[in-house]
Formats: sequence, C-alpha cells, structure tokens
Amino acid sequence: MIIDCHGHFTTAPRTLHAWREKQLASADNPANGPKVSDLSISDDEIRKAVEGGQLKLQKERGGDLTIFSPIAGQMAHHLGNEQTSLVWAQVCNDLINRVCQLFPDNFAPVCQLPQSPGVPPRNCIPELRRCVEELGFVGCNLNPDPSGGYWKDPPLTDRRWYPLYEELVRLDVPAMVHVSSSCNPCFHGTGAHYINGDTTAFMQFLLADIFKDFPTLRFIIPHGGGAVPYHWGRYRGLALDLKRPPLESLLSNVFFDTCVYHYPGVELLTRIVPVDNILFGSEMIGAVRGRDPETGEYFDDTKKYVDACRHLSTEDCRKIFEGNARRVYPRLDAQLKKRGK
Amino acid sequence: MIIDCHGHFTTAPRTLHAWREKQLASADNPANGPKVSDLSISDDEIRKAVEGGQLKLQKERGGDLTIFSPIAGQMAHHLGNEQTSLVWAQVCNDLINRVCQLFPDNFAPVCQLPQSPGVPPRNCIPELRRCVEELGFVGCNLNPDPSGGYWKDPPLTDRRWYPLYEELVRLDVPAMVHVSSSCNPCFHGTGAHYINGDTTAFMQFLLADIFKDFPTLRFIIPHGGGAVPYHWGRYRGLALDLKRPPLESLLSNVFFDTCVYHYPGVELLTRIVPVDNILFGSEMIGAVRGRDPETGEYFDDTKKYVDACRHLSTEDCRKIFEGNARRVYPRLDAQLKKRGK
Repeated sequence: MIIDCHGHFTTAPRTLHAWREKQLASADNPANGPKVSDLSISDDEIRKAVEGGQLKLQKERGGDLTIFSPIAGQMAHHLGNEQTSLVWAQVCNDLINRVCQLFPDNFAPVCQLPQSPGVPPRNCIPELRRCVEELGFVGCNLNPDPSGGYWKDPPLTDRRWYPLYEELVRLDVPAMVHVSSSCNPCFHGTGAHYINGDTTAFMQFLLADIFKDFPTLRFIIPHGGGAVPYHWGRYRGLALDLKRPPLESLLSNVFFDTCVYHYPGVELLTRIVPVDNILFGSEMIGAVRGRDPETGEYFDDTKKYVDACRHLSTEDCRKIFEGNARRVYPRLDAQLKKRGK
Repeated sequence: MIIDCHGHFTTAPRTLHAWREKQLASADNPANGPKVSDLSISDDEIRKAVEGGQLKLQKERGGDLTIFSPIAGQMAHHLGNEQTSLVWAQVCNDLINRVCQLFPDNFAPVCQLPQSPGVPPRNCIPELRRCVEELGFVGCNLNPDPSGGYWKDPPLTDRRWYPLYEELVRLDVPAMVHVSSSCNPCFHGTGAHYINGDTTAFMQFLLADIFKDFPTLRFIIPHGGGAVPYHWGRYRGLALDLKRPPLESLLSNVFFDTCVYHYPGVELLTRIVPVDNILFGSEMIGAVRGRDPETGEYFDDTKKYVDACRHLSTEDCRKIFEGNARRVYPRLDAQLKKRGK
C-alpha cells in the first residue's frame, strides 16, 4: 500500500478559520471569546471538504492512506497565549479525529501540540496523551520554533524538551518536526521558514546526544530534510570537524519525507539518504498547489518522482511507500494489522 | 583560468583576533580600546598565513585566482555598535587589500561592510566607496541578518536597502549575500545559519520587484544557493501560486556558487540552474576543512566535483570557472584585462 506520511487538513471548512479569528481576537480575555461548542461543523461538511480535496487527489494519484494532521501554518503557536494554543490544539485535533473516523481507511491521525513561546514543552503532554491514548493518534507535529520565525526558544536538543520526549518514547509515537507560519517579515512561510526549520533541526540533532538519551525517539524531518541531502557532504564534513559521530549515527532516529517538488531533488534524496530513512510524503494539498506548466503535472505529486527513480528496487519503493512508515509509526502499523492490512 | 569566487582570509594572523577581542571589550568606551595603529601585522606574517593556507591549496587544486574577503563568521555585525563595525570593517578590508597587493595574481579583494543591527544600510556607503574606488575592490559581502540569527532587520527587498543598492549599481560591483556568525543558540553558524541565510535571501528576491528597480544589481548566493536548487520545483511552484514572475526573471541578477561539498549536490546544481548563473566557488579554507575518509579528498575541493560533471561542455565549464565571474565582477574583468589576462 501507499502511505503518504505528510498531509494537513488544509481544506478544513471556513467555519474553523472564522472560529479561530474570534478566538485570537479575545485571547487576552477568553471569557468574551467563542466557546468550543460554538464551532459547529457537520459530518457532511467534513466529507465535502475531504472528498473534494485530499481524498480525491489521494485516489487520483494512487495513494491509499494519508497520515493527516491539522494545518501546519495555522498552528501559529506564537499567537495568543498558552491557553489559546491549548484550546486551539484540542479543536483542531478533534476535527482531525472526525476526519479519520469518517474515512478510517484513508486517513490516520497526527496531532498538533499546544506549544507556546517560552512555555515548557512538558505542558503539551496531556494533549499528546489524550490524542494518542484516548483517540488513537499515531504521532504528533512538533514545532521547533514556537515564536514563529524569531527562534527564541531553546534548540530541540535542550533538556527543556526532555519530558516531552520521554512521553513520546513511552507512547512510542514519532514527531514530525514542522514549523508553523512566520511572523518574521524576513521569512516567507513555506518558501523559507519551513525549509530553514528542517535544516536547523537536523543540525541541532547533529550537535547533541539526545539519541543517546532517547535511543528510540524518532523524528521525521519534512520537505525532504530542508537543505540537508543537497548539502550531505557539508554535514558529513561538519560532523568530522566538530568531532561528532558520523551522520549514520542519526539514522535510527531521523527520517526524511519526499516532499521535494521536482524529480532531480527526489532523485538526489533517494541516492544520498539510505532508503530505510525515507518516507513517502507529498504535503498535498499544501505549500505548492499548482501544476507545472511544462509537464501539466502537479508539483506536489511526489509519487511520480519516486516512481521515476529507476535506481530504486521494488523493495526500496516498498520501504519508502509503506514499510518505513509502518516502522516509524508503530501505532499505525498495529491499527493496519488489526484491519488485516 | 580558474577563478574561485568565494574565499575568506580565515588564516589571518592571530594578532587580528586578539585586536578584535580588545575592540569588543571596549565597544562601549572606544577611547579605552585599541587603536587601529596598535594592530601590527608584517608583510611576512601575511605571506606566511597565505602561503601555508589558501595559496597552497589554490595551487594544489589547480586554481588561479580567488576572490578574497574578510572572514565571514568574524564580521559579527551584531557585536558592539555601528562604530565598532565601521572600524572593524576598515581594519579587515585593509588587511585584505594587503593580501591582494602582495599576491595580485592570486587574489582579488572583496570587502566587508560596516553593517550594524537597526542602522540604515546607507551608512555602509563610504566604506564601500573607499574600498572600490580607492583600493580597487571588486565586490562586497552583504549580511542579510546583521542581528546574527534573530533576523530583526527588514528583508533585503525593503526600501531601506535601496541607497546601498544604488551605490552598488553606480560602482557596478556585485554583493555576495553572506550571513556572519550566529548568536542564536538554535542556529549553528556554518551548519544552519549560513544555509538558511541563502535560502531566505532567494525567497525574498522571489517575492519582490527589486530587479525591476535595479536591473543591473547582482547578488551571488553562496553555498550553492542554500536549499534552493534542491527545491527548485518548490520555488517554481511558489512563484506561480503567488502570481510572481517565473524564476527565470531573477537570473539576470541572482547567481549561485558551487560551495556544495559532495558530487551529487554539484551535479544537481549544474543540471538545474542555468550554467550562466553558476560561479565556481569553494570557500576554502572555511566551513569544512577535513578530508572525506571515504575518498581521501578534501570536502571543499569543489573543483573536483565540477570537473566530474560529464553533462557540462567545455564551454559550460569555462563559464563556471571564469566567464561568469568576469561578467558578474566587471571590475575584476577590467583588472585582469589590464594585466593581459
């Protein structure tokens, strides 16, 4: 089967966005703001949003299942405060849960965390637990920069993050390292901040020993690992110069998706990074929605690029499209096995 | 001939660093600090620093001329204040000038600008003029983030930068977009901040119309353009989605060097980016100094990677190694012609 590890509910009904606007407008005085119960989205609205969007494209492109999470750019942990982020995460995660319950064969849920700048990541644990243990979520998205482009919180390797990592390990769920929108005018969101976040996270991992402390902690670095595979020689050389272990030492814990929107990029990725560390992902419908005027194909139809990689064996492709995702998301694997898949 | 567009004087005598430390220690009260005349570096010390370092490797690797500038990581515009940066730029640029006067056939000078966070870039103009018009410098390095990893100044496309661009155009010198060190613990300098700076700058250019306003302004984005060529499809798609002109519209003004430290990266770069927009660069002796234990070769011996690109014709290589640099740095071209080269 074909598992797309990287999808966000970008086609969520507009009602959700309207509710969020009201929530943010009253962030300082939530008593005046909207109640969670004020948000009313029917099953039909959800079906319509998905059937006309992600589900349609999933079928057209030959996918089977998308690991599905709230809109990354709308997590916006820098807006409002800790309470704003907590309620917003609950609302978004509940909506993802409904999508996945309506289409259990097509979507598996991943949650947004209620991060907030300067707030200890341990405060995210209750919502993570609720999603994984009560609702059956298989992973989470983790924002390495809750400040939205100013990078004011400590690196992912700081001990401040350790309580959250302990919980990820206990629950045996991975985290996709995924920034949200940028409020820094220097950084375009999907064109700079996303890619920088990926590159930055990898270098943080290279410099520290968190995987000695958490040997089973797993991160997916999206967007093809940012700049990392293109600069693989640089990172190999930096590891040597800095007297760090070789990059291979990260490969039990760090994985890359295939959200690179042209064939030569995916070719480089799949030639450089061991196939065991690559998970098929498209982030559709996401950062780039158009078709390449030169080919008529969608830029984000990354399955086509993987399929075109002749250097990959059938077994390599099976790993990239399915096996690695089932290994990195063991709770997904268990759910699939339960359903005889 | 082989022109390396990207070299810094990273082997500068330790005296320079000691002077800088004293300068920074008295940044708030420069009267107590070291005088420029306190810095004493003999011609022999400069010869020794270069002959044992950049010149040696230039010869060993078959290079002819390096476009040479002060240490990028030591520009550190975020330290001290505007006056600190001005004096430090003068000191560093004068030292580069001496290197290039001692070895005029091997090095061509590029200057550091006296940038400072929050200070209008126009204040850099007198030092730029001094370097170009009085000392014969052929270009400058421009730091897109004088705050050193917090990105507090406006994007490169903001009108605040325009007076400096007017001067670059008038002098007909290009700028290499090059961040300095990072004081943000999230960003390793050469492993994250450098590459992020490159990616960020490209996306800023994509979003704005500065090359309509300055049709002859030229920027070199180093380190192979950060993540950009690897994600070329993403940028093509974003340009379309955002109703911006196609990437080709940037290619009269934006150039990439070949500082990508493995063959597959250089192969991708040279297959994706038109050869007219690629300048040979190695940044040796710089970010990555070791040898690849698998091949015994230096990671930053990027000439080997370009030489190995069989898809490049002799004419393509001539452009990458020489022609493009002479076109992008017309003052260098004029100097070379004067010397019959």
